[in-house]
Amino acid sequence: MKLYELVFKTRSYRRFDESHKIDYKVLEELVDLARLSASASNRQPLKYMICNLPVDNEKIFPTIAWAGYLKEWNGPEPGERPAGYIIVLGDKSITEVFGVDPGIAAQTIMLGATEAGLGGCMIASIKREQLRNVMRIPEKYDILLILALGKPVEDVIIDEIKEGDVKYWRDDKRNHHVPKRPLDELIIKF
Amino acid sequence: MKLYELVFKTRSYRRFDESHKIDYKVLEELVDLARLSASASNRQPLKYMICNLPVDNEKIFPTIAWAGYLKEWNGPEPGERPAGYIIVLGDKSITEVFGVDPGIAAQTIMLGATEAGLGGCMIASIKREQLRNVMRIPEKYDILLILALGKPVEDVIIDEIKEGDVKYWRDDKRNHHVPKRPLDELIIKF
Repeated sequence: MKLYELVFKTRSYRRFDESHKIDYKVLEELVDLARLSASASNRQPLKYMICNLPVDNEKIFPTIAWAGYLKEWNGPEPGERPAGYIIVLGDKSITEVFGVDPGIAAQTIMLGATEAGLGGCMIASIKREQLRNVMRIPEKYDILLILALGKPVEDVIIDEIKEGDVKYWRDDKRNHHVPKRPLDELIIKF
Repeated sequence: MKLYELVFKTRSYRRFDESHKIDYKVLEELVDLARLSASASNRQPLKYMICNLPVDNEKIFPTIAWAGYLKEWNGPEPGERPAGYIIVLGDKSITEVFGVDPGIAAQTIMLGATEAGLGGCMIASIKREQLRNVMRIPEKYDILLILALGKPVEDVIIDEIKEGDVKYWRDDKRNHHVPKRPLDELIIKF
């Protein structure tokens, strides 16, 4: 697949076919893509927890704040929840500053997920202490991101932005609309 | 190209065939890839300056600190310098916090550069005030990253890490070696 198509298909999905299980091996391969990606000063301070068992998924799910702009929606219902997660941690014994590394890793993993027929969402709005407790994450690790993954069951449509309103929204058919700024607004000259 | 191969080939290159010019259109397409990528709360606060003219390249080059671990090397010589740059800015009129967005955008652009037969390096070690002056960047924009791009003329070899030493190094043939942590060090369980 050309990268443009892969990037275009890599939308933020929040509803999944939860019965579609994700192999541990697939998640491991996604982490390997992140492993091979750039890291500031090559420090490689990110660590990863792979979760694909219902018992862990049930612990992680309630620690996530879903889709801030959809005030009426508390996240996916049972049956439409993620079938797996990759928790991105920052190892503070290596550095205290993780800079651009989490974004690099997360995007690489999400592109890989698309290629593997999956989809998901990068989530930074996390009840961190709750997650730390339920997953027994030692204090030496900063909790940076949760990557929620599964087989998407929703369409995500890219719209042109209107009057600068960046809020995503759902239509009557429960499809998700995401307004994107046009290219000529992003490329600037002085 | 499969994503694994694309990620594997997307090394940090610092020596280029400077005579190999980069079309503005190519750089614009790379920014479009970043445009279509995820952004925290869909705010899309990143802006981009595209530079591919020698007159601009000569202004930007001295504002970059090259390869911190190579103490004997002050960056690429004339003829081996980047043929283009994408400067990633954060628009503070949209948000003051850019989070994972710069990493997402930078990695997407660098993957696209590889697909386009180019290569380069994400650089955060920048003489920011000097760059702001020479490129007339208004104060409302944070200078986040410079992506230096060109046709690479060096090989970059991934090595297994030895005794935790993450420093990259150059061999006698001026090839660049990058030690990467093994996968089983990155995936952790508690």
